[in-house]
Amino acid sequence: MQRTQITDPADPRLDDVRDLNHSDNRPDLPGGRGLVVAEGPLVVSRLLESRFPARALVGFPAKLDSFLAEHGDLVPGDLPVYEVSRELLAEVAGFDMHRGLLATADRVPELGVAEAIAGARTVCVLEGVGDHENIGAIFRNAAGLSVDAILFGSGAADPLYRRSVRVSMGHVLRTPFAHLEGTYTTWQRSLQELRDAGFRLVSMTPSGDQSLAQALVDAEGRPWDKVALLVGAEGPGLTEHAMRATDARAVIPMAPGTDSLNVATSAAIGFYERLRALN
Amino acid sequence: MQRTQITDPADPRLDDVRDLNHSDNRPDLPGGRGLVVAEGPLVVSRLLESRFPARALVGFPAKLDSFLAEHGDLVPGDLPVYEVSRELLAEVAGFDMHRGLLATADRVPELGVAEAIAGARTVCVLEGVGDHENIGAIFRNAAGLSVDAILFGSGAADPLYRRSVRVSMGHVLRTPFAHLEGTYTTWQRSLQELRDAGFRLVSMTPSGDQSLAQALVDAEGRPWDKVALLVGAEGPGLTEHAMRATDARAVIPMAPGTDSLNVATSAAIGFYERLRALN
Repeated sequence: MQRTQITDPADPRLDDVRDLNHSDNRPDLPGGRGLVVAEGPLVVSRLLESRFPARALVGFPAKLDSFLAEHGDLVPGDLPVYEVSRELLAEVAGFDMHRGLLATADRVPELGVAEAIAGARTVCVLEGVGDHENIGAIFRNAAGLSVDAILFGSGAADPLYRRSVRVSMGHVLRTPFAHLEGTYTTWQRSLQELRDAGFRLVSMTPSGDQSLAQALVDAEGRPWDKVALLVGAEGPGLTEHAMRATDARAVIPMAPGTDSLNVATSAAIGFYERLRALN
Repeated sequence: MQRTQITDPADPRLDDVRDLNHSDNRPDLPGGRGLVVAEGPLVVSRLLESRFPARALVGFPAKLDSFLAEHGDLVPGDLPVYEVSRELLAEVAGFDMHRGLLATADRVPELGVAEAIAGARTVCVLEGVGDHENIGAIFRNAAGLSVDAILFGSGAADPLYRRSVRVSMGHVLRTPFAHLEGTYTTWQRSLQELRDAGFRLVSMTPSGDQSLAQALVDAEGRPWDKVALLVGAEGPGLTEHAMRATDARAVIPMAPGTDSLNVATSAAIGFYERLRALN
């Protein structure tokens, strides 16, 4: 391991963690997007275990010590490890990073749909979910409730954005995801690939004509073997175009006259009902 | 209606919305806590419909116009209405308030437990949930999923904090809540009041010995008439002391080896399962 102390805020070896509030927009990188940035020991350990190749580990001396003592086996021998003071990191990153431990990694080519759903029994398809925190929360809920993959229709936020990575607790780095091809009005055709792979397609919508519990079992009350749950953004919900491409429209029973639930919460209830049907 | 344009940032009539990032700590007010502050038309309308007596309505001219056109009937004749420019409000509040509409109200004496649970069939009891966003999210989920009241054991954050009000979408102003008496180690005795009122007390915990679905129905599979769902903070969860005071310990089936869900998400799944059992 190459552990180096850095004391000069202008040191180019810290460029990966410079101005972190804007690090998701890096025109100098391929595709003009940011690196993958993991914050805190749990998410950093998940980054090091993931398919994303790590570039550097940066932290306060004590945070590095305790991380390396617990997770040293995850750290490749040739990974640069940079020791910085709290003041130096605050100056470089642009804000006080009380977690004191960061890792960066390169993006890798995204999985294809077939690859992402290989072996999956439950997948979630998101349409128009443009909020990074919601994307992160959906990955976290998916991991906790046994969803095997996430697919994106059009209009979805970048799951590898720094805030998504953090809110997901690193699960965006673990759960396979892929983008379905097409524009706002054509991506829905790509759902055919899921149907061909044996998935029952279920829209979650306040205008559903059956309960979620009913939609996730067949006429004999047995759970569908493979299920894709479609969820749309808070407010607009799924497009009619997307719902028309599915087999069922399911509703979460709600108190009359209240607002809809947050999209990540609705998704979690869908995931829970699916797991409940399988158990 | 007394609609007045204000152009001087030092005008004392704007003190209610001054320095909003610190407005939850007002030593000049009874109890040293802040006013109730509602932001945006939906939450402002809920404030005006609530038991909290409004003090003032403040907004950009266009935002006031459209709010008054739609909700003018909610605005008491003697409520001061202050028209301010975006720049002025930003200067007074301490940040740019793009929503451009605010209302303030006085706190009122809190409900007693008996009052809060009168007529309730489903209540949620929170222990140690110290995060204002989680408190707000739990109120939002409770309203959407037909929970009638929220009770607080020890260690809970203030539900009337500005951020809780906002995240709850104003439901903290509508759903009855009360604090159970006692300290960290004694409040659990107050749960007897719920049992005396006929509630089945169910702890939600990863260490539960039955599923949530099982815990919410009796031996014949009928839903309990009245249910109190207990939820603890993320991380520590419910204290053993609290769980020992309940009738059942219920677990959300989860993917093995993953982290627990966010506390508001777990609560939402509990609320959903309860509603499912009743339907």
